[in-house]
Amino acid sequence: MSHGVGTAGEERVTEAIGAVLPTTIDEQYLAETFGAATYEYDTEAVQRSLSDPVWELLDRGGKRWRATVFRTLVEGFRADPEPYAPYAAVPELLHTGTLLVDDVEDGASMRRGEPAIHEQYGVDIALNAGNALYFLPMTILRRNPGDVDGDTRLAAYEMIIDELNRAHLGQSLDIHWHNEREIRIDEARYLEMCSCKTGSLGRLAARLAAILTEQPPAAERAVSNWARDLSLAFQISDDVLDIESTRGAVEGFGKEAGNDIREGKKTLLVIHAAEHAPPEDVARLEAILDAGDTDRREIEECIDILDESGSIDYARQRARELKNRALDHLDAVDLDADAARELAAFTEFAVEREV
Amino acid sequence: MSHGVGTAGEERVTEAIGAVLPTTIDEQYLAETFGAATYEYDTEAVQRSLSDPVWELLDRGGKRWRATVFRTLVEGFRADPEPYAPYAAVPELLHTGTLLVDDVEDGASMRRGEPAIHEQYGVDIALNAGNALYFLPMTILRRNPGDVDGDTRLAAYEMIIDELNRAHLGQSLDIHWHNEREIRIDEARYLEMCSCKTGSLGRLAARLAAILTEQPPAAERAVSNWARDLSLAFQISDDVLDIESTRGAVEGFGKEAGNDIREGKKTLLVIHAAEHAPPEDVARLEAILDAGDTDRREIEECIDILDESGSIDYARQRARELKNRALDHLDAVDLDADAARELAAFTEFAVEREV
Repeated sequence: MSHGVGTAGEERVTEAIGAVLPTTIDEQYLAETFGAATYEYDTEAVQRSLSDPVWELLDRGGKRWRATVFRTLVEGFRADPEPYAPYAAVPELLHTGTLLVDDVEDGASMRRGEPAIHEQYGVDIALNAGNALYFLPMTILRRNPGDVDGDTRLAAYEMIIDELNRAHLGQSLDIHWHNEREIRIDEARYLEMCSCKTGSLGRLAARLAAILTEQPPAAERAVSNWARDLSLAFQISDDVLDIESTRGAVEGFGKEAGNDIREGKKTLLVIHAAEHAPPEDVARLEAILDAGDTDRREIEECIDILDESGSIDYARQRARELKNRALDHLDAVDLDADAARELAAFTEFAVEREV
Repeated sequence: MSHGVGTAGEERVTEAIGAVLPTTIDEQYLAETFGAATYEYDTEAVQRSLSDPVWELLDRGGKRWRATVFRTLVEGFRADPEPYAPYAAVPELLHTGTLLVDDVEDGASMRRGEPAIHEQYGVDIALNAGNALYFLPMTILRRNPGDVDGDTRLAAYEMIIDELNRAHLGQSLDIHWHNEREIRIDEARYLEMCSCKTGSLGRLAARLAAILTEQPPAAERAVSNWARDLSLAFQISDDVLDIESTRGAVEGFGKEAGNDIREGKKTLLVIHAAEHAPPEDVARLEAILDAGDTDRREIEECIDILDESGSIDYARQRARELKNRALDHLDAVDLDADAARELAAFTEFAVEREV
């Protein structure tokens, strides 16, 4: 998967998404998805308030790695991927929903290089479209293209709800910490937050593949743990990259350099520095993270504090440890060799990438 | 139910809500609800970002009629209400979640006589808490206090997802129309929007009672239709009351008079007037509804247009027709006589109330 997803695979995911929310809304889609109208649907309004804003964001790209994880695991479990292809839209559309909502929560102005959807369509439209995507994908389970039995569908719903509960718990922790000036939290609480917030949708994709293909509980647990540790390793290496790109150590890093400091994010690096840097440095770090309108000089000051406290090296090392734990979880599952190799390569890439 | 819910019933609903999201968060609650921590939960952050804002809103009151509908129908279906009591939190907390989110979408500054939760806690906290309430109540089904079988739980999940999909569809229509200057829609599209937006959570409460007590499909359909028509009748009579209170015809109407006109709502009255008033009056109505900062004189001008086109009388008559249809649906179900009487009285009250 580090080698890029094939075009056929990408098209199949786009097709799956289009079955849940088509680019063109008609009466038949509305009747099949929301039930026959008692009176009359307004297709034009649904087009403009639901399909258009969601597809505006989908058409801007995105890696869609959760869909690829799902498909690769289905193949890894030696099941015919075709009947399960529509379910790849579940983690992707849930992810798209969280982007729409998170951008409103964070007051973000940009997404994927263009104005955030709430800037373009209004907060009301963007939020409601995001929230609609929390439930629309579950209609795939009702349609049941994989022809799975009732117990399997029940397990899938309960797993999805479980992961979405954890996602919102993680987001509540992250928001709360972000609003605090003091760096109060420790590594254990930080990793739990990431495990909930960053890990939930990846875990959902992995568990969905295991549940639908009726794997034993141990296999579901192992791929769930793999996805969790992969997400943690990815998050931490992403935070390291944000800092390294600012130092000019890495070229071509997509995001604006020093963004995490500008946004006052309590990353693992910051948490480690708060525990290991001299008190006056910690106070300075807290002040800069808490202030708006951070300039280049202040960002460099923060990076020096992180560097001198050994926090950058520490985070890089933790990301590698978590990546290795992820690979161990993967090894514990009986998977088709090609799929296992792809998933292992993806795990390496998530941490060792330089862009 | 028009006679007010007994204190014991109210306390039971509060207890049910507290089981889903307690007023005081501890480790045990987090582990039971979100699974054992891999690292460590931050109870204080969950307390302040999830429990506090939700209970701030819950403690302000609210009629909790959906919980009462659920309980009364369970009794109506001659089931022991006690094991089903925890499920009353499902429609109530979903409703609370939509209030938190809708207030952000509408840019509302007040809720239940006090500052909206996003004004008090911030948009990020309020939104995430609202969205968390979209999934947290479903943990009751997993706990399974009613000891229902897997098929019943599956049916309950699919029904809840179905109704939440319709709720978001309805909201997308309402937002889209609100953003349009022209009054483009007709009565059929308006009633469909209300049926989705206003009707979904009432229908969810009614259907949940039918599903959990394992009623035949015809009974579930009948109470679902009852809840839908009741919600439509309630919405229309609410819109009539908003206008009448402004005319001084009714005293004690809780909301600020003329609110619907000030907010530019496309109510059934407005839609009827757009079809029946002279073109110059319709143009004037559209202009006033579209403008911000509407003054008393303009509100009275709108009311005169609604009155002269017969729209107020028409809406009052439609509300009664829908109420009678709701009562017919109720009559079609084999319910315990006391419960049937209570539900019929509530149906009458929803339309004939003067406050």
